[in-house]
Amino acid sequence: MAPSGIITLTTDFGEKDPYVAIMKGVILTVNTSARVVDITHQVPAGSIYEGAMIIRDACKWFPHGTVHLVVIDPGVGGKRRPVLVFTENYFFVGPDNGLLWHAAKEEKSVEVIHLKEEKYWLHEVSSTFHGRDIFAPVAAHVSNGINPFFMGEKIDDLVSLDCSPPIEKDNELVGQITRVDHFGNLITNITEKDLMPFLESKDFEIQVKGLSLKKINISYSEVPEGHPMALIGSSKFLEISVNRGNLSNYLNRKVKIGTKVIIRRN
Amino acid sequence: MAPSGIITLTTDFGEKDPYVAIMKGVILTVNTSARVVDITHQVPAGSIYEGAMIIRDACKWFPHGTVHLVVIDPGVGGKRRPVLVFTENYFFVGPDNGLLWHAAKEEKSVEVIHLKEEKYWLHEVSSTFHGRDIFAPVAAHVSNGINPFFMGEKIDDLVSLDCSPPIEKDNELVGQITRVDHFGNLITNITEKDLMPFLESKDFEIQVKGLSLKKINISYSEVPEGHPMALIGSSKFLEISVNRGNLSNYLNRKVKIGTKVIIRRN
Amino acid sequence: MAPSGIITLTTDFGEKDPYVAIMKGVILTVNTSARVVDITHQVPAGSIYEGAMIIRDACKWFPHGTVHLVVIDPGVGGKRRPVLVFTENYFFVGPDNGLLWHAAKEEKSVEVIHLKEEKYWLHEVSSTFHGRDIFAPVAAHVSNGINPFFMGEKIDDLVSLDCSPPIEKDNELVGQITRVDHFGNLITNITEKDLMPFLESKDFEIQVKGLSLKKINISYSEVPEGHPMALIGSSKFLEISVNRGNLSNYLNRKVKIGTKVIIRRN
Repeated sequence: MAPSGIITLTTDFGEKDPYVAIMKGVILTVNTSARVVDITHQVPAGSIYEGAMIIRDACKWFPHGTVHLVVIDPGVGGKRRPVLVFTENYFFVGPDNGLLWHAAKEEKSVEVIHLKEEKYWLHEVSSTFHGRDIFAPVAAHVSNGINPFFMGEKIDDLVSLDCSPPIEKDNELVGQITRVDHFGNLITNITEKDLMPFLESKDFEIQVKGLSLKKINISYSEVPEGHPMALIGSSKFLEISVNRGNLSNYLNRKVKIGTKVIIRRN
Repeated sequence: MAPSGIITLTTDFGEKDPYVAIMKGVILTVNTSARVVDITHQVPAGSIYEGAMIIRDACKWFPHGTVHLVVIDPGVGGKRRPVLVFTENYFFVGPDNGLLWHAAKEEKSVEVIHLKEEKYWLHEVSSTFHGRDIFAPVAAHVSNGINPFFMGEKIDDLVSLDCSPPIEKDNELVGQITRVDHFGNLITNITEKDLMPFLESKDFEIQVKGLSLKKINISYSEVPEGHPMALIGSSKFLEISVNRGNLSNYLNRKVKIGTKVIIRRN
Repeated sequence: MAPSGIITLTTDFGEKDPYVAIMKGVILTVNTSARVVDITHQVPAGSIYEGAMIIRDACKWFPHGTVHLVVIDPGVGGKRRPVLVFTENYFFVGPDNGLLWHAAKEEKSVEVIHLKEEKYWLHEVSSTFHGRDIFAPVAAHVSNGINPFFMGEKIDDLVSLDCSPPIEKDNELVGQITRVDHFGNLITNITEKDLMPFLESKDFEIQVKGLSLKKINISYSEVPEGHPMALIGSSKFLEISVNRGNLSNYLNRKVKIGTKVIIRRN
């Protein structure tokens, strides 16, 4: 796979400190013509799960050959391995703490390299900022077309990250919320396929924190303004929303990642 | 007009979710060499008025041929039309809900296309994320030089957005606040020309929420630190500010968009 | 020094208004192929000190020939001079209010130009937004290779910014906090070299707001989760942190820029 010249960045660094820009400076020093695109730097500090969901959802919309640099790295300087994952379509660079698991799982021909070749790193490597010292230069070298196999040692035990699928039992399907977005929409781990057997029953109910919905809508505007509704969202998962409103606020902000969403067939 | 290769983005998507990055990925897939510039993603959710003011004020500072992609789209999936507006100088892509009205109004040779040609969209179009499925690919195709007339049907009834100009009556001019900026400056809809007849009287007063000012200054530093003052701001409208301070805080945050600003001639 | 084509931006403008984007539009109008990288726009409004620390820490990670545009400019429109500083490695453009002092101090062959040549500015210059009208076009012209000496008059009295180094007295070294970062880490003005004489004593203590630490660690993971610790951070200064936690919160947010950090040798 030829690199696209694009490098995306996903971190929990926030935007007030110079950390993200320093990584970009390092990238541009190694590959002067790299084009860097921010995915987000607002992953909650240390939240590997949320970072993993973001990169899983965002990566596939970029041109093939894009390098996805992902740094949510609470174990920096400890024993976790720095890795490069490459697949049929993309490169992923980051710490081996589960962060890259879900993105990799959806790809084909996955190879994992334990980054060991220090000549692709900065000369001096700190114990607190591998984003700058290891991951940024490696991503830039990959975007320059350096062979991933030169960068370290092939391994086959990428650290996994638990993300239990919805559980079906009798007439219930129990899923959970995987993201509460900026608009207050609740995104779940329930797919259209999971829902199918329930939709066929005609008499079903979706429950989350006391809210009960009996229909799957197609678009927000099918319900009056301010009313809650469920639909299959743009990421192909069941979403629960309020037309022109904020469902998270509607439910008094009682929902969070992991909150149960129950589909019941009567 | 030849495209500049630059595409700007203005949305109410915030920066914590992958939505903005997904649009950038789609753009870069269609036009690998597009250069994407963020205007802001912090328009309050669903605030068409605020988005319209932002793009009106920002668009004209970009090179001619720039594509301005603007997505504040609370009616997504409903009946509102997706449109491409092109003028002597710029292209604008977004929902036809009033958002593009003020930017278009200041331009010459305005043409409006109702986007209908699905071959310039993603293959699959969701009912909740037209930013990704319609607007981003259309913007990228426009930046590639595709003829706007190929993309849909010419229309002449772009949806307008009410923004009443200041009202003059006897010895009063009543305008309103159109933005409270990051520094707490209040930007109004009153132009220098509107002010002229009042300035000539020498004895005039500017009133907003109990604050009274009797002078138009040239720069912040003409008043002592912490003092309020009025001037013609960088966007050519009357602004009310505090030198090295925050007027919004000074007025206990009681001002907002739409708050009246009165100029009185004695 | 040949320009790299890269222009970085550091401001206190925030991200909700169109101000930053307007500067980018001006830059791209002057230099169509400039590559603009945001350092941060979240410097607290008017905080010259914090802006100066950010650009000092970030600038050196960019390719030589990069133009660093820095606008924290509470005195805009007043008497402070607009300047271009160029060194062996970088160009810096901004107001002469101390902002560029620390970045310049770490560079060699420093030359300072008082910007006076209006043909490199926008035709119309406001008294409230020199970022747009003077600094952005100058930065873009510099990135186009225009000779800095054409842009104004050489001066040698760049405004300095006080940043007292740590003070050693008897068995104490008294430094201070220079940044509280997004993770709640406290970055100080104490270098490894400053610390050396204390580390040699074996029996030393680091004190900040009632917290006492007796060791310098190498990486976060050497202490249990949730425990505070001190280390030499990635910027080569003493940092005080909590492993997988937030020291600022741990100390009930009582620390801020300027808070004393004391090293005591027993």
